[in-house]
Amino acid sequence: MKILVMHGPNLNLLGKREPEIYGTLTLDQINASLTELAADLDCGITVIQSNSEGSLIDAIQAARDVYDGILINPAAYTHTSVALRDAFSAVAVPTVEVHLSNIHRREEFRRHSFVAPVAVGQIAGFGLDSYLLGLRAIVDYIHGMKQR
Amino acid sequence: MKILVMHGPNLNLLGKREPEIYGTLTLDQINASLTELAADLDCGITVIQSNSEGSLIDAIQAARDVYDGILINPAAYTHTSVALRDAFSAVAVPTVEVHLSNIHRREEFRRHSFVAPVAVGQIAGFGLDSYLLGLRAIVDYIHGMKQR
Amino acid sequence: MKILVMHGPNLNLLGKREPEIYGTLTLDQINASLTELAADLDCGITVIQSNSEGSLIDAIQAARDVYDGILINPAAYTHTSVALRDAFSAVAVPTVEVHLSNIHRREEFRRHSFVAPVAVGQIAGFGLDSYLLGLRAIVDYIHGMKQR
Amino acid sequence: MKILVMHGPNLNLLGKREPEIYGTLTLDQINASLTELAADLDCGITVIQSNSEGSLIDAIQAARDVYDGILINPAAYTHTSVALRDAFSAVAVPTVEVHLSNIHRREEFRRHSFVAPVAVGQIAGFGLDSYLLGLRAIVDYIHGMKQR
Amino acid sequence: MKILVMHGPNLNLLGKREPEIYGTLTLDQINASLTELAADLDCGITVIQSNSEGSLIDAIQAARDVYDGILINPAAYTHTSVALRDAFSAVAVPTVEVHLSNIHRREEFRRHSFVAPVAVGQIAGFGLDSYLLGLRAIVDYIHGMKQR
Amino acid sequence: MKILVMHGPNLNLLGKREPEIYGTLTLDQINASLTELAADLDCGITVIQSNSEGSLIDAIQAARDVYDGILINPAAYTHTSVALRDAFSAVAVPTVEVHLSNIHRREEFRRHSFVAPVAVGQIAGFGLDSYLLGLRAIVDYIHGMKQR
Amino acid sequence: MKILVMHGPNLNLLGKREPEIYGTLTLDQINASLTELAADLDCGITVIQSNSEGSLIDAIQAARDVYDGILINPAAYTHTSVALRDAFSAVAVPTVEVHLSNIHRREEFRRHSFVAPVAVGQIAGFGLDSYLLGLRAIVDYIHGMKQR
Amino acid sequence: MKILVMHGPNLNLLGKREPEIYGTLTLDQINASLTELAADLDCGITVIQSNSEGSLIDAIQAARDVYDGILINPAAYTHTSVALRDAFSAVAVPTVEVHLSNIHRREEFRRHSFVAPVAVGQIAGFGLDSYLLGLRAIVDYIHGMKQR
Amino acid sequence: MKILVMHGPNLNLLGKREPEIYGTLTLDQINASLTELAADLDCGITVIQSNSEGSLIDAIQAARDVYDGILINPAAYTHTSVALRDAFSAVAVPTVEVHLSNIHRREEFRRHSFVAPVAVGQIAGFGLDSYLLGLRAIVDYIHGMKQR
Amino acid sequence: MKILVMHGPNLNLLGKREPEIYGTLTLDQINASLTELAADLDCGITVIQSNSEGSLIDAIQAARDVYDGILINPAAYTHTSVALRDAFSAVAVPTVEVHLSNIHRREEFRRHSFVAPVAVGQIAGFGLDSYLLGLRAIVDYIHGMKQR
Amino acid sequence: MKILVMHGPNLNLLGKREPEIYGTLTLDQINASLTELAADLDCGITVIQSNSEGSLIDAIQAARDVYDGILINPAAYTHTSVALRDAFSAVAVPTVEVHLSNIHRREEFRRHSFVAPVAVGQIAGFGLDSYLLGLRAIVDYIHGMKQR
Amino acid sequence: MKILVMHGPNLNLLGKREPEIYGTLTLDQINASLTELAADLDCGITVIQSNSEGSLIDAIQAARDVYDGILINPAAYTHTSVALRDAFSAVAVPTVEVHLSNIHRREEFRRHSFVAPVAVGQIAGFGLDSYLLGLRAIVDYIHGMKQR
Repeated sequence: MKILVMHGPNLNLLGKREPEIYGTLTLDQINASLTELAADLDCGITVIQSNSEGSLIDAIQAARDVYDGILINPAAYTHTSVALRDAFSAVAVPTVEVHLSNIHRREEFRRHSFVAPVAVGQIAGFGLDSYLLGLRAIVDYIHGMKQR
Repeated sequence: MKILVMHGPNLNLLGKREPEIYGTLTLDQINASLTELAADLDCGITVIQSNSEGSLIDAIQAARDVYDGILINPAAYTHTSVALRDAFSAVAVPTVEVHLSNIHRREEFRRHSFVAPVAVGQIAGFGLDSYLLGLRAIVDYIHGMKQR
Repeated sequence: MKILVMHGPNLNLLGKREPEIYGTLTLDQINASLTELAADLDCGITVIQSNSEGSLIDAIQAARDVYDGILINPAAYTHTSVALRDAFSAVAVPTVEVHLSNIHRREEFRRHSFVAPVAVGQIAGFGLDSYLLGLRAIVDYIHGMKQR
Repeated sequence: MKILVMHGPNLNLLGKREPEIYGTLTLDQINASLTELAADLDCGITVIQSNSEGSLIDAIQAARDVYDGILINPAAYTHTSVALRDAFSAVAVPTVEVHLSNIHRREEFRRHSFVAPVAVGQIAGFGLDSYLLGLRAIVDYIHGMKQR
Repeated sequence: MKILVMHGPNLNLLGKREPEIYGTLTLDQINASLTELAADLDCGITVIQSNSEGSLIDAIQAARDVYDGILINPAAYTHTSVALRDAFSAVAVPTVEVHLSNIHRREEFRRHSFVAPVAVGQIAGFGLDSYLLGLRAIVDYIHGMKQR
Repeated sequence: MKILVMHGPNLNLLGKREPEIYGTLTLDQINASLTELAADLDCGITVIQSNSEGSLIDAIQAARDVYDGILINPAAYTHTSVALRDAFSAVAVPTVEVHLSNIHRREEFRRHSFVAPVAVGQIAGFGLDSYLLGLRAIVDYIHGMKQR
Repeated sequence: MKILVMHGPNLNLLGKREPEIYGTLTLDQINASLTELAADLDCGITVIQSNSEGSLIDAIQAARDVYDGILINPAAYTHTSVALRDAFSAVAVPTVEVHLSNIHRREEFRRHSFVAPVAVGQIAGFGLDSYLLGLRAIVDYIHGMKQR
Repeated sequence: MKILVMHGPNLNLLGKREPEIYGTLTLDQINASLTELAADLDCGITVIQSNSEGSLIDAIQAARDVYDGILINPAAYTHTSVALRDAFSAVAVPTVEVHLSNIHRREEFRRHSFVAPVAVGQIAGFGLDSYLLGLRAIVDYIHGMKQR
Repeated sequence: MKILVMHGPNLNLLGKREPEIYGTLTLDQINASLTELAADLDCGITVIQSNSEGSLIDAIQAARDVYDGILINPAAYTHTSVALRDAFSAVAVPTVEVHLSNIHRREEFRRHSFVAPVAVGQIAGFGLDSYLLGLRAIVDYIHGMKQR
Repeated sequence: MKILVMHGPNLNLLGKREPEIYGTLTLDQINASLTELAADLDCGITVIQSNSEGSLIDAIQAARDVYDGILINPAAYTHTSVALRDAFSAVAVPTVEVHLSNIHRREEFRRHSFVAPVAVGQIAGFGLDSYLLGLRAIVDYIHGMKQR
Repeated sequence: MKILVMHGPNLNLLGKREPEIYGTLTLDQINASLTELAADLDCGITVIQSNSEGSLIDAIQAARDVYDGILINPAAYTHTSVALRDAFSAVAVPTVEVHLSNIHRREEFRRHSFVAPVAVGQIAGFGLDSYLLGLRAIVDYIHGMKQR
Repeated sequence: MKILVMHGPNLNLLGKREPEIYGTLTLDQINASLTELAADLDCGITVIQSNSEGSLIDAIQAARDVYDGILINPAAYTHTSVALRDAFSAVAVPTVEVHLSNIHRREEFRRHSFVAPVAVGQIAGFGLDSYLLGLRAIVDYIHGMKQR
């Protein structure tokens, strides 16, 4: 089983960025934890990060027939990108959306997700653990699909 | 570590109720799976279900100084109960909110949660797995707090 | 054929309450008229009234496999209770919603019903007659279903 | 007692039109059922149908001093016609509004009625039975007025 | 100078209709007063009333090159008819909009006029006098245009 | 009969101000025309202009028991002053609201009047003629009241 | 193949009406161009124009079993007529909606179409060419349906 | 004179709950202060607290013919309960609504009260003093009624 | 202890103004009652009334270092004056806002207060008693601050 | 005559993507059909597709002085990109906007186009034919401009 | 070159008022800095401050033919005064609007300016520097106009 | 001191683009003027322009620890890019937002800025001068920070 892990805009700055909201964790630490858990769950992961909406769409499209699932933190594009949503609809690779912070506690415009309605589900508020829970969620979901 | 698992209104009908949205899983099966995972995670769980907003509030209040965390699927009260929100604020027991279905894909009024802003985080869309991920989330969160 | 007649919050005060809106009719008189009509229509009715959202949900759940239909005046909960709506969706017992007053002529917030979209239909504005017409409606509806 | 039965725009196509919403019943069958029930209720009915807002208003105006009550399914004009509403206010003939479908379950714009606030009441969702219940409602209402 | 006086839907019922809002004045009395004032102002008037949006549009179109101005009380169509507005834009005959009642004091939906932005101006709230002032207004306006 | 004519903020600049909207007419010319018409109508007028909301309120209050009616162009305060509205409600001197320009054709915020619902009526769009028609309107209204 | 071409309210004034928006083209010229293109496309067209919502609905209803498709410019009724929408739903004759002007560039209320969601598609902004493209569109659509 | 003092959901946690908003005062201290003041004001008070909307309604209904007035802090139900509002309308016992915190300074959803429009008045922002002022207010109000 | 009592626009007309809303009480009677209560509470009061927003702001600014608290009924400026709000923020003299009528029962625009969020609290609906309770509230509040 | 054909994000997946909305047609087939029609219409076309908003803007800018017109399906960027709109305004190359699906029948957020107000017009709902009609539209438009 | 510098309500309290938002700078210090810069820029300035909307309007009107430009911080009136906007439109003296604080970061109601659309431009967020930059802006603007 | 000057999408077309809004000034002229002023202000500037949201974010991120401040005209991304906002929050380099045109006078959607709340301040409406004032503003701001 192969999972594509996608980090949206500005997540490369993690640990340096607004620590009162996102903590001191770096993206490398997240990726290391994900790799470790992926090994436990017997799946391979590939990680990409991009600040560009277009590049993220390219990556989602390229995931067809290559990955069994996608784990994405769309960051700011969560709230503004119809194009990302359409990409997920188009490729129909099962996707789980995660957020480090509890978006329901922040600015009004962060409460709406264009991606969530076309994702399997959404996990928000648990910091690093949002990613780890999300990886479990997508792996479990794919197992469930295969059993059907 | 002791976790209170709360099921909101109508969840007792699970498996009999709108299977195209919620599947055929029963509440007993969810509770059994949670118990099993709780054992793995080395924590105890107590389960309650109620159709009454007032009873759920009573239970939240009674959880103070008794439970280390709460795992709740507030179901319909998610969208209408300020009283539930205030109860969580008042007792300040760490809480994780879960939903079986992907609420972002359903009626507009199901997208807003009064509880989420006072919870640690929210997990939605994974069926039974929402609960299991939620149990991991609350247990991890409590471990994280203790380490601080 | 067995019909459950449900009266929502404050309807027990009928006849004493805001007579300029609801008239001087008491709940007992309504129930008596319903019983009489039920006899004519060859069906049995059971009547409950409650001020508690949770108790009304309990009663709806208990109606499964016991009643052929529900006739409900959800009163104030019409406008605020997603939980009541979910209960009706869950038990899938055919339901008719009635209102004594013409809710379309009153405060803006009384024009929206959470229940109506999951009911067979809605009857409003005819006082006692709303109930009697509603009883005919639910009985006719059940006959229609049986013929199909 | 004389009742004017009014059918709004496109109801002449009934039975041929969107059967998944309105069923296969024709307007002639509705009128036949109404005539039959009117005989039982000891009242006379006159039926008109029009696709024209202006003609419907003309008919409402002509109903003054001729009919004791009006039973109307204003169809699409329910949601857009202030002129129809004003006609009912002007003639002050008691009116009952009926709808074949459950308008609360359809598009947002079908939930608002300009007519309902000036009608005695509204009945929606019972197909043919909406009309039959409506006829009973208006007849009962007129009897009630006479007794006062 | 020739002025077309147009009365919208339900104004033929004036004097019989909602006297608490519109008084006991009949349309004939209004027309008589207008005729008298028109003589004083040295202009001829033609009067029409219709309940039909389409007929009112036909009349507006026919007014081109025949009338110097239009005095209209569009009644209910004020608030709902884009077609009336477009007719006035198309014929470009100077038009004054009048209302018997003070529409700013009534239901919210009566405060918006589709016609007013393409009229010279609007006069509302003076009963019969709204028409008389409106006739003066349109006559003065046409005089003013001719002087330019 | 004595009428108070009130001009709101910036009307003293008339003729110098935005001629594409208000024309080249000065306030003095308006007042002269009003004086002339007042003579014809057999009434006396007093004119005030102020840029200050408080002074306008003082003047309205002082009009009690002194003037039979008020003719006001509240200008910008039309859209923002609840205090002006309350002053008119408090003194209960019949008031007519006039506007030089057609406010229905301008910015959205100019379409709402706080004053109109407590005035007899509103006249807008006729330039100088709005005032002259307004003077006739208030004089006619007072005559009508006296006859009752 | 037979196509019904429908022109909504005020389009009979074309060429005389607001040339800065609609140009100098007359309705006769449009019809002549359509007839010419229809000949090329090997189909017959019938043309009607009406200012009356009711007459347009009558015509749509009469089109059942007579015409293979409808090409309509609903003009002002685009934005206000639920009845027109219901007529199209009822007859289920494939329909293409066209507009001379670019409605997305005009007043806010012209951006919403009640007809478009029940039409095959919408073409707006190309003047006469909107009609010609619309005729091609409906003819191509019917060919496509026949091939299926 | 007998006054019913009602405390809504979560107020039993007072002093332990969000001290930065509600202070360290307990419900027992509030009740003690109220009892003391009641003695001064020569009236008797009965105190209840409930987390259940239904129980609060039951208590309001039971207050008819027993209490001269009600002093209530509806807490979270202030903002969500139409049923509470209807109970107050139904029993018509004069009621004063109080809030510990200044609700106008908090979340948007706390600014609207379903209860206030059917209460005598509302007092908010003074902590314990809100209750004491509220008791004075209801006692004064009842005295005033008796004098009339 | 010195308290500044401020009465906003039109309150000088009290007793003459809309008695169905405000009663027959005059401002002098209110001031007399306040003076009496102030004596009981051992504080001095100064009273001002103004119809001018600017004068009210001047008075608030002048209150710095002179008064211990302000009791204000901002009347119409409650709903429209950001400048009044900023004045209270700037001087930081504790302020209590009072209203004679129950503003929650009146027009929608009277439900919002720009002042309340920067005041200690708000009291509305008790007529004269709103002022008396307000005086107690501000005096108690100042005592409380001094004890801290 | 040279036309630039632009395909927005995710259109490269056409035929593989949501066939229930977009059919089984591929982008290559669309481009082949366009090339064929372009030959008939005696014009040359260049085709680009990009998932990147920035690249699309670069291409629009580069079209100045090179292409006579642009045919674009902006896909998801239709609804979110002000930058695309500004690019079209800046280069002032005549542009036609097309959509495969009937956007008026889909999610609310797909009904608004930032591009349409600065385009010549919009064509939506005809699948491949939207493009072919769009090519005719832009070619006709350019011919029309040259004739002026 | 002569510039009028206008300070709106409550700015006279600067330095004493909400230092966490506005800092400790006094209005005298701002005026001193402006005078110094004016000397450098070879222009004269006159400074006024007022808490009264009417007085500010009087001052704007008096500026015609006397000042070449106006530099204003309208403070609270920015968000509520249509009268101020109309005054600027009327006198047509070039105006620059400045704000000490970053109004885009504060309450929602502070984000809208009635003045900005009739000003040359707006500068916000730089404290004292907003004024200094504003003076440069208005001086540069006037130089630019003169060169044209 | 080093400042990064960033120009958003379509600004490279300046001088060629909508001259009635933006004038004939080119981006090179702006950059030359900025370079000149930077020399005067004793700071170095680096200039970039991009049409790509992702590239702009990359540049902002790269500015950390390299530049003392950023001067940006985000153009269209001002109104749509949460990602740009998050980039500024993340790098925490002081930023000034400028606009050539007076955005408060244009389309409604141009009045909201996602960037302004995380910038020091915003300057709009002064053409080239917006940039020059913005450069002064950011330089002054950095000096001010260093002095603290």
